Amino acid sequence: MEEKLRLAICQMKVTENKEGNIQKAFDMIRTAAKNHIDMVLLPEMFICPYDNSKFEAFSEDPDDSPLLGGLSQLSKQHNIFIAAGTIPEKTGDRVYNTSFIFDREGKVAAKYSKAHLFDIDIPGRITFKESDVLSPGSGITTFDMGLCKVGVAICYDVRFPEFFKLMALRDVKLIILPASFNMVTGPAHWELLMRCRSVDNQVYIAAASAARDTGAGYVSYANSMVVDPWGTVTARAGEGEEIIYADIDLQAVGRIRNELPLLKNRRTDIYDLREI
Amino acid sequence: MEEKLRLAICQMKVTENKEGNIQKAFDMIRTAAKNHIDMVLLPEMFICPYDNSKFEAFSEDPDDSPLLGGLSQLSKQHNIFIAAGTIPEKTGDRVYNTSFIFDREGKVAAKYSKAHLFDIDIPGRITFKESDVLSPGSGITTFDMGLCKVGVAICYDVRFPEFFKLMALRDVKLIILPASFNMVTGPAHWELLMRCRSVDNQVYIAAASAARDTGAGYVSYANSMVVDPWGTVTARAGEGEEIIYADIDLQAVGRIRNELPLLKNRRTDIYDLREI
Repeated sequence: MEEKLRLAICQMKVTENKEGNIQKAFDMIRTAAKNHIDMVLLPEMFICPYDNSKFEAFSEDPDDSPLLGGLSQLSKQHNIFIAAGTIPEKTGDRVYNTSFIFDREGKVAAKYSKAHLFDIDIPGRITFKESDVLSPGSGITTFDMGLCKVGVAICYDVRFPEFFKLMALRDVKLIILPASFNMVTGPAHWELLMRCRSVDNQVYIAAASAARDTGAGYVSYANSMVVDPWGTVTARAGEGEEIIYADIDLQAVGRIRNELPLLKNRRTDIYDLREI
Repeated sequence: MEEKLRLAICQMKVTENKEGNIQKAFDMIRTAAKNHIDMVLLPEMFICPYDNSKFEAFSEDPDDSPLLGGLSQLSKQHNIFIAAGTIPEKTGDRVYNTSFIFDREGKVAAKYSKAHLFDIDIPGRITFKESDVLSPGSGITTFDMGLCKVGVAICYDVRFPEFFKLMALRDVKLIILPASFNMVTGPAHWELLMRCRSVDNQVYIAAASAARDTGAGYVSYANSMVVDPWGTVTARAGEGEEIIYADIDLQAVGRIRNELPLLKNRRTDIYDLREI
């Protein structure tokens, strides 16, 4: 039985032009779809500069969004899942950092809003406070791709091991992660965190970042990557705009979990971790 | 106010000669103690080859142990903490993989037995099943060094993020980790895990390994190291027998926790992690 999934990650450059960003995303999805993929991933805030002052102006109302309609059509037309990075989602007077995932029939397979808002203040190096303008999402979110369950996390979420362990305990074999690390945290922690979450939870991780634009206010580290459950980086983008491809070998997940039974060896008589 | 602690890690070679191992440990402690240290660390199973067939024969009864008595005297004599790696501890008909930590007065500051027993089976590469002969310990263990609280974990424990997060929630600023990774898991995961646990929990980690002996049945990866709360390796041993030194800057812990407030940003309304 075929137990592989093929992914594409579109590491696109995000500009100040919302319509241009949408066209770029659609074009990259169409290109990726020619390569026998099961799912294509876009980066965090792929329609909008990563800037607190822009999120509301670039936001989408999910009940009236030609963008989401277009992504739905594309997924159905190409018979692929589309993990549509994230967009600023306007609901009532709140804005969320939200990922919509479309299944092969164009239906919303999952919708997840970033749970951990990015609040960092390293004086003189990087300061960003998402919680000033965004509202936090809620709850572990997983969906079924047929061959396996998949978890969703967004950027800063990756720093919270409990969040990932709970996805592993739901038996996901792949976690997708639209993200946008910067030039301080990226070189220090991007690869480290992706590799360690994979190793801890014995899952594949696919992290989709925007391409680097050194002229932007917030400079993305880029380096989109796929990591296998042993912590090996199996695909990695550079700084620029590109599409990378990777196979997810579901049998490898099972083999590694047998060889090193981390999920079984947890001491649930010492610590208790649960979803609320 | 001085907010630094100075550590020494004795990366000693462990042989089949128990008395020789004890003398080696004592000698290295005496050497380290000349260098203005606050604590000295020894590796996992520093008196005994890492081999299921040896643990019982090399075990110590803590109620009748000249070794533990000698360590107590040394700590008092040099006015230092001694984190005495681990020894096979015989209690009744059970053997535990236990770390004794002595304070500056020679009293036992903490005693911790490995909670997660190492059971790995990668055919043709590495197979080891501690749970065949050792009994598991219980409970998060921390102790106070005056300037900060310190947590204790042993080797395979490092693969269980909940265990470490609970120590961070007890506000430890340093976690000590006698360990013995091998030549399969060492190159793949040793540095990755030490760095990521430091970054996740914004603590220092000091990991003490035995020196490499390529003639042994279980070949230690060595590479004892100290990692700071930003994930930077600040001291690292090679393969051979050596003592490494490192400063623990407690103000750095506070600064990093302010800059990137991971402990505050946990979504305790989504997940609940607690000690049982």
